[in-house]
Amino acid sequence: MDLLKRHDSGGVAHLEMNAPERLNALSDEMLAALQAQIDALMEDRETRVVVISGAGKAFCAGHDLKQMQQGRQSEDAGRAYFADLFERCSRVMTGLRNLPQPVIAQAHGIATAAGCQLVASCDMAVAARGTRFGVNGVNIGLFCSTPMVALSRNVPRKQAFEMLTTGRFLDAEEARSVGLVNRVVPQDSLADETAELAATVAGKLSAAVRIGKRAFYEQAEMGLDAAYAHTGAVMVENMLMRDTEEGISAFLEKRKPDWSDGSV
Amino acid sequence: MDLLKRHDSGGVAHLEMNAPERLNALSDEMLAALQAQIDALMEDRETRVVVISGAGKAFCAGHDLKQMQQGRQSEDAGRAYFADLFERCSRVMTGLRNLPQPVIAQAHGIATAAGCQLVASCDMAVAARGTRFGVNGVNIGLFCSTPMVALSRNVPRKQAFEMLTTGRFLDAEEARSVGLVNRVVPQDSLADETAELAATVAGKLSAAVRIGKRAFYEQAEMGLDAAYAHTGAVMVENMLMRDTEEGISAFLEKRKPDWSDGSV
Amino acid sequence: MDLLKRHDSGGVAHLEMNAPERLNALSDEMLAALQAQIDALMEDRETRVVVISGAGKAFCAGHDLKQMQQGRQSEDAGRAYFADLFERCSRVMTGLRNLPQPVIAQAHGIATAAGCQLVASCDMAVAARGTRFGVNGVNIGLFCSTPMVALSRNVPRKQAFEMLTTGRFLDAEEARSVGLVNRVVPQDSLADETAELAATVAGKLSAAVRIGKRAFYEQAEMGLDAAYAHTGAVMVENMLMRDTEEGISAFLEKRKPDWSDGSV
Repeated sequence: MDLLKRHDSGGVAHLEMNAPERLNALSDEMLAALQAQIDALMEDRETRVVVISGAGKAFCAGHDLKQMQQGRQSEDAGRAYFADLFERCSRVMTGLRNLPQPVIAQAHGIATAAGCQLVASCDMAVAARGTRFGVNGVNIGLFCSTPMVALSRNVPRKQAFEMLTTGRFLDAEEARSVGLVNRVVPQDSLADETAELAATVAGKLSAAVRIGKRAFYEQAEMGLDAAYAHTGAVMVENMLMRDTEEGISAFLEKRKPDWSDGSV
Repeated sequence: MDLLKRHDSGGVAHLEMNAPERLNALSDEMLAALQAQIDALMEDRETRVVVISGAGKAFCAGHDLKQMQQGRQSEDAGRAYFADLFERCSRVMTGLRNLPQPVIAQAHGIATAAGCQLVASCDMAVAARGTRFGVNGVNIGLFCSTPMVALSRNVPRKQAFEMLTTGRFLDAEEARSVGLVNRVVPQDSLADETAELAATVAGKLSAAVRIGKRAFYEQAEMGLDAAYAHTGAVMVENMLMRDTEEGISAFLEKRKPDWSDGSV
Repeated sequence: MDLLKRHDSGGVAHLEMNAPERLNALSDEMLAALQAQIDALMEDRETRVVVISGAGKAFCAGHDLKQMQQGRQSEDAGRAYFADLFERCSRVMTGLRNLPQPVIAQAHGIATAAGCQLVASCDMAVAARGTRFGVNGVNIGLFCSTPMVALSRNVPRKQAFEMLTTGRFLDAEEARSVGLVNRVVPQDSLADETAELAATVAGKLSAAVRIGKRAFYEQAEMGLDAAYAHTGAVMVENMLMRDTEEGISAFLEKRKPDWSDGSV
């Protein structure tokens, strides 16, 4: 049984975390499996969109605490192991941002600690009604310091601070209202609604989406003037793409574009 | 017929984009007209507030795509023209931020692509119920990379990303809830409600509003300590203004201030 | 009668501004009293959470305008005094962020100008229904330039700009919806609800909350990669705490942790 199942269809790579008995915890093995897929997707020109979901009752409950405790059985009481673990975990999270493809979290059940971070680290998220989100490590004495990097770039400051210091869970509607997820749908239609969103994005001109996603995060860390200088250059490259010329012509001629990459 | 009509009243300069048959597209000519007004307003001590609206069915539908396609008829296939175009467009957008006067978008109909950017680039926005907002360039293969600079400084990350990669439109209420506009009002009262907001701001001490607006955007790009050092110095200058001394005295004496600049 | 009353209970230091006849204005004396408490709390290992409230009808109405006007009676017309005043005020505001303990504003009545800044500067805020929030200095010709530093780090850009340039007040529900406060509760239960939130946070492992709060604001001013590098190191230190090892073990063994610092 694969720890991380992959199913490809219509330009969408669907990654399903598959350790339901451990609530899809981000164990060393799960992180390695995610990183392997991220590495593969980085070079993958066929895949246009990535969806991440979890098998079983939960999306993801965060780190594998049992495994972490075992990490203490070393001369340095785990220091090197923990440093490496958080580095690997952060590499997965930033890897999702660095992927050329948009990544959608398909969340249900619970998404807690690093599992909540995973939702926040995806470009978009669809949640089943009833899903609970929390950065509740504080309850066991482990403040969710790395998860808050992603969380605080999604959620307003006071709300993020409250989640982090109280461990309080948000339901799906609250998560939507603070910006952590895009849509809340019935559990029954979660897969379909996520697939529909994925298909919508997969239908766009892939080359444009790729340069757009990259520029989105690049400009977010710049001042206004630098951001405009950078994105202006991006738009020039976009305009010079053969398929973009065709896309604009088709629009002006009120017909469907004939794109070389199969977009519709 | 002027491409950009200007009407001044009560310290408010109302700019109306007036190319209704082209949905007030930001053509070379429209950008030049806007830039000319921005240049004039930059030195204008009489004008206290600027309002931007669009004639006809739409606020603004973005760039003039036909004109852009014509730009390809050059030896470099348009590269230099496009670079210049996006530079001019970005100069208009940042020019609105750099103006000493607060700028209010009065949006109705549709505000798409660079038209949505125009709304996001104004300091405030009032929208008629039914207005649709989108950064939908992705639908024709041209990712709204420069519009996203303004959009992503108004709208939370996941919502902005979804708009950019799906091309989905927001209605006015959604636009308000994500922070893109301040108020949604019936179409019938759009002009009146915008004028009322403009009059409210125009009634404040102009010198204070000017230094406040400038400091608002300056401090937004600073760390907390630098932001306080900067704004502290701004408040000292504000306190030393003759009219501010009068404003505070009037407040303490429960009377109306007698301001030299005609504010009320 | 103390200008700032302090009451300690259950690891929570409750500071009550006590100049009700002046709506708890941030006079020189009040700022000094707050700074003295901040200095003391900075070194205080017993206190786990701080609550700030105001006696009488209002939380805080901002600076003491009468005192400020008196500051003009100097050779430099107040320049040095104002510079010092805003520096002292900013030191109090950033001091709240720099405190190792989470700080909760318990707001009622009105919270205006620097009083609104005080709410924004706290890590969390609970507001009584009916509380009004505003940065209304513009009404008397004094733009709330330092308050906007805190405000604009809580509230989306267009909403903050409107508050600053119109002086418009938000009611408690609006304040919550834009991110300025965490919760709105009936006036009758304001003290109880705030105390309950404080007790929840005070019940967490104090050492974890302290490093978490510090890291929260540090990473907020970093780019994504630097933020992960920093918080990864923080999590390693957190993992190596004896009480965190116990907290995780207790969780895995489904029992209450036996924490050395008295947390529950």
